[in-house]
Formats: sequence, structure tokens, C-alpha cells
Amino acid sequence: MSLTVVGSIAYDGVKTPAGERERMLGGAATHFALAASFFDEVRVVGPVGDDFDEASWATLRTRGVNTDDVEHVAGGKTFFWKGVYSSNLNSRETLETDLNVFEHFDPKLSAGAQACDVLFLANIQPDLQYGVLQQCRSARFTALDSMDLWINIARESLERTIKAVDCLILNDEELEMLTGAPTTLAAANEILGWGLKAVVAKQGKYGAQLYTADGTFALPAYPLAAVADPTGAGDTFAGGFVGSIAAAGGEVTHDVLVRAMAYGTALASFNVEEFGTERVERLTGPEIDERIADLERMTALSGDAVALRG
Amino acid sequence: MSLTVVGSIAYDGVKTPAGERERMLGGAATHFALAASFFDEVRVVGPVGDDFDEASWATLRTRGVNTDDVEHVAGGKTFFWKGVYSSNLNSRETLETDLNVFEHFDPKLSAGAQACDVLFLANIQPDLQYGVLQQCRSARFTALDSMDLWINIARESLERTIKAVDCLILNDEELEMLTGAPTTLAAANEILGWGLKAVVAKQGKYGAQLYTADGTFALPAYPLAAVADPTGAGDTFAGGFVGSIAAAGGEVTHDVLVRAMAYGTALASFNVEEFGTERVERLTGPEIDERIADLERMTALSGDAVALRG
Repeated sequence: MSLTVVGSIAYDGVKTPAGERERMLGGAATHFALAASFFDEVRVVGPVGDDFDEASWATLRTRGVNTDDVEHVAGGKTFFWKGVYSSNLNSRETLETDLNVFEHFDPKLSAGAQACDVLFLANIQPDLQYGVLQQCRSARFTALDSMDLWINIARESLERTIKAVDCLILNDEELEMLTGAPTTLAAANEILGWGLKAVVAKQGKYGAQLYTADGTFALPAYPLAAVADPTGAGDTFAGGFVGSIAAAGGEVTHDVLVRAMAYGTALASFNVEEFGTERVERLTGPEIDERIADLERMTALSGDAVALRG
Repeated sequence: MSLTVVGSIAYDGVKTPAGERERMLGGAATHFALAASFFDEVRVVGPVGDDFDEASWATLRTRGVNTDDVEHVAGGKTFFWKGVYSSNLNSRETLETDLNVFEHFDPKLSAGAQACDVLFLANIQPDLQYGVLQQCRSARFTALDSMDLWINIARESLERTIKAVDCLILNDEELEMLTGAPTTLAAANEILGWGLKAVVAKQGKYGAQLYTADGTFALPAYPLAAVADPTGAGDTFAGGFVGSIAAAGGEVTHDVLVRAMAYGTALASFNVEEFGTERVERLTGPEIDERIADLERMTALSGDAVALRG
């Protein structure tokens, strides 16, 4: 069994109120893979350039991540993104986006990557995502991330791709934008009507919600006393979420998806504690289990009902 | 046993994507009282003017709310607020604020209102809130709402008042503004250090979090397919939260507060389904119980743990 992720591998320059990094390993596929590596054998598909150094290869291979499908584009440079976060981390401004080798990325998966049990399509152009789906026809569960850009400039392609996966993972406001529905629940219900098994609404620092034919599940983010760097939190969430679905095996029931929400939430909470991949690189399984237990405690509706008048 | 609330009684003019009301009964004390009336005998303290009509008196007295302490200021006009919400309801613009009789409100409580078991201080000038606290020295639980305005122009007064209550209920970003702490958890922990038993962070459409010496509890908002009017949601939350604490009696433990979060969340979710007090006026106890059961289902962390690699 294995889990394939297709997406960006990048260097990020990030400034937050907690500090700054000029250039550190990032990218959606990187963050996803490091989180998902706790759950299953992960294969990363994405391009890098000549500047991709040994330390980055080593980090990408954390917990046995398979990089056979990472394409080194000779003469090219690795995707670079630079941004600065607002004082409360609620928003960020992009200062620089150099697509570099990512600009002409057209994923061709090896036989091993194509034979995946579970597939995650990180945010790339939706026709490319669709092409990957065609290469992985035996996957038993497929999930997709996207962004407002593709809703605005490639809506038809995006809708075709969404209709071809089992699960859409998107920010709550992007779900509303995609459907024109007035609330996240209404948006998710409309998308479930397209034939998906599950929709996940990411709510940033507030948490995430899961919608399936069997109901809704809502999980707040893990409360933290300090956040160093939110970059990659969504992809780390996806890594925990999709990774644990891969590990659970068998039918992807509502309960499997609910438990996956907890893994995604726990992993994302570690990711933001430090810059880039720093925290998740050295994270351990027992730390994850402990945070899941914390989440169970802090969401348990204890206390007794009271009698109501009227 | 009884519950006293001190705050505004108002007429609101509201426009949202779902519709418009030129003039409807509103105000923090009104919304609080209608929610809290499910749990305990509620006494409302606040001023109204000559224009306060019979229908409004009747609504205010829903489920036996006691209006003996509602002061009719002869020759005056009732507080009026008018606002318009953005298309996704995430923000609102105030078009008109006529304080009217509320401008010179200086609450003097009757013996009955002073003898309350539980006291809620809705958002008014913090020195006035402090004065009310001095009049209710036998209350076994006191809670306070406020707003960014008082943080900006009356910080010392506000801090003195906060330090004199058991529980602060505030928007998450206001908690961070009040303390300068970088996250809501850090802000709440700092305020708990001032000697409070509990801090509640309201997160708007995302839910609310509770912080006590015994830990953190987080509850998402109840997902809705449509929202008509968010006006009064925070005060309705407070009515369910504080009301159920009054009804529980005895020591206000972490578990009592956790259950109170569920009542607050359930009541607030009904409030926003229609304009103003329309939905909560005709709400029934069984409907509340059903929504609480829904909340339990949609927050229960079901599913099995998976084995982690590493």
C-alpha cells in the first residue's frame, strides 16, 4: 500500500511576528509528505531545480518518504515563494513568486506512483490534477486541494476535476465562492451532490469541518499559546487527514474520516509551532497520540443537561 | 433564585442579504433575556423611551421575563441602531446610532434585581458595570461582556471591572487586543491570571472557546444552511451560557461551564436563523435539547486510532 502526493516542492522566504527565514524547504507536497509519512509509505511527485540541495533531499526523505518521482529539471531553479504575515497572522502578503521549474510541470508518474492505494492532489492547475487522476485509476481514495485562483480562471476544469475525486479539501470561503452558496454547510451539501464522498472545509486558525452523506463533523484547531509560522498548515492538515485514511485501510466510512480530521488537526498544530518543516521533521508518534488525546478532552461535551422552562 | 441582566434595550434597523427590517426589538439585554428565560427567572435592567410599544413589552416578557427594572424614561426615545451586513455576513457597517435614553443610563437596581443569584453585565461603559457589581454583592456568579471601544478609551476602568467578575465573555480578537497576547489561548491564560474563574472567547460564525484553570474547551458553531441575521448572536450565546449556569445551581465547575457552552451555542444558532428576536421568541425547550444532541453527535471524535510510523 502506498500514498502518492502530487504538488509543489519549494523554497520559501517567510517573515512572521515570531521571526524570519530567508530560504527554507517548503511547498505543498513537502508539507503533505512529512505529515503523511507517519501513516504510510509516501511517494512525492514534483519538480526541483539545480539549487535543490542535499539537506533538502534528506528532509524530504524524512520517515522513509520515497522521492523516486521527484524530477530534477537540469538547468532549472526550484519554485520560490516569499511572503510576510500580518501581526495577528490572519493574512499574508506575497512578496515574490518565482514558479521556475514548476511553471512547466506536467506530472508523469512512475508505475510505482501510479499504483498508489490513496492519492492526494495538492493545489496545482486543475487540468494537470485531472491528468494525474487518469494515471492512478486503481486508487481506492482520492482527495484534492485547490485555491481561489483556479475558481476564478479555470472554473470548468476545476469542477470536472472535483467531480472525479472522492474528497475535496478547501478553505471555507473558497467553498462558498465555488458554489455561490451563502454558508459553508450549504456549499458543502451542494458539492456532495456532485457525487463526492466527503468535503472538508478548512477554517484556518479556527479549525475544520467534515461533510459526508452521514452528517457533519466539526473540530476546532488545537489552541496554541504561540504560533511561529502558518505556512504549510493546510497541506500538513491534508497529510495527516489523507495519511490516516490510507493507514486505516478498508472502507472510508464517516468514522474513518472523523478520526482523520483529528490527525490532520494534530499535525497542523505542530507544523505552525515552528518555521517551515522544522517541527514536523523531528515530531514523534507519541507526541501526535498525546495531542489527539488532548483534542478528545477539549472537545468532549461533559456536564449535565439542565431542565428547560418552556 | 434569579438572574439579572443589565444592558441595552433597543430598536434595530437591519439589512442583510436575506432581507431587511426597518425597526425591530433588539438590544443586548433583550437578546440575553429571551435566551436565558429558558433556564431561570430573568430580571432585565435597562432604559426605554416613550416609543417603546406594547408589542415590545410583550416580547420582552417572553417566558416570564421580569421587566420591573426596565426604566421608562418619560419624554425620551429608545436606543436605536441601524446597520447593514456584508454579503457573506462577515462584517457589518453601522449606519446610525442614536443612544437616546441609553446615553444617560446609570443603572439603579431594585432590591429584587440586586438579590440575584447570577448577574450578567452586557456591554455598557465599564464604570457603570462596576457600579452594578457593587449593588449585587451576594451574586454567586458574575459574567461580563464588553467591546473594543472600551479597550481603546477606558482600559483602566475595564480592567478593574473584569478583575471583579467571575467570567469574561469577549470576541477572540478583543481578548488579544486587551492583553497584547499573540493568540487567544495566551490572552485567556493572562486574564485567568487576573483571578477570573473562566474566560470565553467568542469566534463569531466559527464557535467559541472556554478557558478555566482546569483546561480548555472548544465548541464549533452549529452549522446552518442559511443565516438570516447575526444581530444579537453574541448576547443570545451569553443568555444560554449564563442562563444554564444559573439553572445548574451549586458550584460552577469546569463541567458546568462546558455544558453551558453547548447551551449558548445552541441558542445563538437559533437566533441567527431569523431576524432579531423572531426565532427565539417562539423557540421551545425540546428544540434546544435536539440541537444539543446534534452538537454532541457532530463533535464526537469517533473512529479508531491508527498505528503511527516513527
